[in-house]
Amino acid sequence: MKALIYDKKSGVHLADRAKPQRKRDEALIRVLLAGICNTDLEITKGYMAFSGVLGHEFVGLVESAPRPQLVGRRVVGEINLACGNCEMCGRGMKAHCSRRRVLGISGKDGCFAEFLTLPVENLHLVPDAVSNECAVFTEPLAAALRILQQVPVTGLDKVAVLGDGKLGLLVAMALRDHLRGQRGAGSLLAAGRHRSKLSILKRLGIQTALAPLKAAGKFDIVIDCTGSAKGFEQALALTKPQGTLVLKSTVAGETTLNLAPVVINEIKIVGSRCGPFETALQALAGGEIDPRPLIEKTYRLSNGVKAIKHAAKQGAMKILLRVGR
Amino acid sequence: MKALIYDKKSGVHLADRAKPQRKRDEALIRVLLAGICNTDLEITKGYMAFSGVLGHEFVGLVESAPRPQLVGRRVVGEINLACGNCEMCGRGMKAHCSRRRVLGISGKDGCFAEFLTLPVENLHLVPDAVSNECAVFTEPLAAALRILQQVPVTGLDKVAVLGDGKLGLLVAMALRDHLRGQRGAGSLLAAGRHRSKLSILKRLGIQTALAPLKAAGKFDIVIDCTGSAKGFEQALALTKPQGTLVLKSTVAGETTLNLAPVVINEIKIVGSRCGPFETALQALAGGEIDPRPLIEKTYRLSNGVKAIKHAAKQGAMKILLRVGR
Repeated sequence: MKALIYDKKSGVHLADRAKPQRKRDEALIRVLLAGICNTDLEITKGYMAFSGVLGHEFVGLVESAPRPQLVGRRVVGEINLACGNCEMCGRGMKAHCSRRRVLGISGKDGCFAEFLTLPVENLHLVPDAVSNECAVFTEPLAAALRILQQVPVTGLDKVAVLGDGKLGLLVAMALRDHLRGQRGAGSLLAAGRHRSKLSILKRLGIQTALAPLKAAGKFDIVIDCTGSAKGFEQALALTKPQGTLVLKSTVAGETTLNLAPVVINEIKIVGSRCGPFETALQALAGGEIDPRPLIEKTYRLSNGVKAIKHAAKQGAMKILLRVGR
Repeated sequence: MKALIYDKKSGVHLADRAKPQRKRDEALIRVLLAGICNTDLEITKGYMAFSGVLGHEFVGLVESAPRPQLVGRRVVGEINLACGNCEMCGRGMKAHCSRRRVLGISGKDGCFAEFLTLPVENLHLVPDAVSNECAVFTEPLAAALRILQQVPVTGLDKVAVLGDGKLGLLVAMALRDHLRGQRGAGSLLAAGRHRSKLSILKRLGIQTALAPLKAAGKFDIVIDCTGSAKGFEQALALTKPQGTLVLKSTVAGETTLNLAPVVINEIKIVGSRCGPFETALQALAGGEIDPRPLIEKTYRLSNGVKAIKHAAKQGAMKILLRVGR
């Protein structure tokens, strides 16, 4: 099968690989559509010292599985492969398994290929109402929705989302949908550096502003999706005393920071990673969240190298890879 | 009156100052005993750009007050002077008043003097059972107890306190007292770099270890009292996924940090500052917490410059200033 590979020696390249063999508890999945994430780009710079098939965002069809009723069904898949035996697994925190492998990120070939395998317990059936173009966003949308599992956000809170990258936009969409269901004068502001990206949110009725925010006052909850040290410091400065700063995107490597305001203002910083697939699929099925305006271009897998280059361009939005047909 | 002053030009020095005039809502307090805190030492390096009478930890006698029944009573005092009108004051978060002045730290002369003034609402009567030597620790002990208002600590949690400075020891004492009242196998470990300081905790039955901790496993709750960037990074590495890191001491200025583990392990960082005076006074009155082993030496106010120098020595414990008699 064709696969988009990264290794340190050859960089990103297309190669022919043997079709993966599924293990007893795994399904073999034929990939339909896959999404390129910033983490994939970080990996191509050496992050996680990963080598193998890239990619962790996908929607596909089950080719074979231990449960025959799964065959032919359309699925998306959670990316953490847990050991099942460590303290974290024992607590039900599989995404934090201390021996986990992660699809296309750590110790497990990813989904930028014709086929992948994943444990059946990681799979979620995609409702018919969800198109492939929407379903491929399940993983990043779940990550955005994770915030609502960690931090109570009510209609009384003043909330800011910093960063208008792909994740920032999904986070703003998820919060807007959540706050629509809340009473009170909840106010949401999304800030970023790209008018064109913010306009996607504006069309949804979300208040937007160009960063850096000035005279916007302080916020009860700030979600930092900037992926930069400067963004983090601004997020900190915009958080009210005893407020909450959600760290959604990582700044790779060491950065210079002043943490004194965290103590002085008794701010709570909450790291946030993988989220609930079922909630994401429901929001996509009901149309409450439509991520399709984030799609910038779809490439064939055979043009995968070009697709990665496009995704790496400053300001690029979601690049998809179409596999097969 | 005599007062220990800091200003940028003359540094720390003893001076004669006019006795402060109390405002309508304030009491005039005759200082009995005061404590030197690391914040005082930071101020003498330029922190907060403060100039004036140093000091914010004290026990004293009310000389005059709007309520005559206060006169002659022994008091300690909260250090934040709130405006009463801002959003934070409206929410009852006076310690976070956006226009606050802070005793001996910001915009308000401190307690290293024969007299100070403080709003009556900041004062707490000291129970007879609490000696001056104990009462002078009310403010830092309240800061240690603040953690228990912010983070639920149960007998099931594995807890580490990093740093064996004055605050670290008080935090460990406060947690030990709290955990004594909890069911379960709560385990508390205090780590630091000074055998002599850790021995104070050991005598209380607290498990101790020399830092850096090796092979101690990870903790549900880590309290960072190290005041160093290295300490913070170690604290982060010792916190379990979805665990809580309490930032109790500040690292002044900019530091180089890697925040990626916060996101990957979904760690919650909680900044923690001023705490409940009444709870501290109760713990001192009941003898549940006895801070006196932390006292290294007591100087007369007239030897204040020497006292500050002593307090600034690497590894020094609590230095007190006796005023009057």
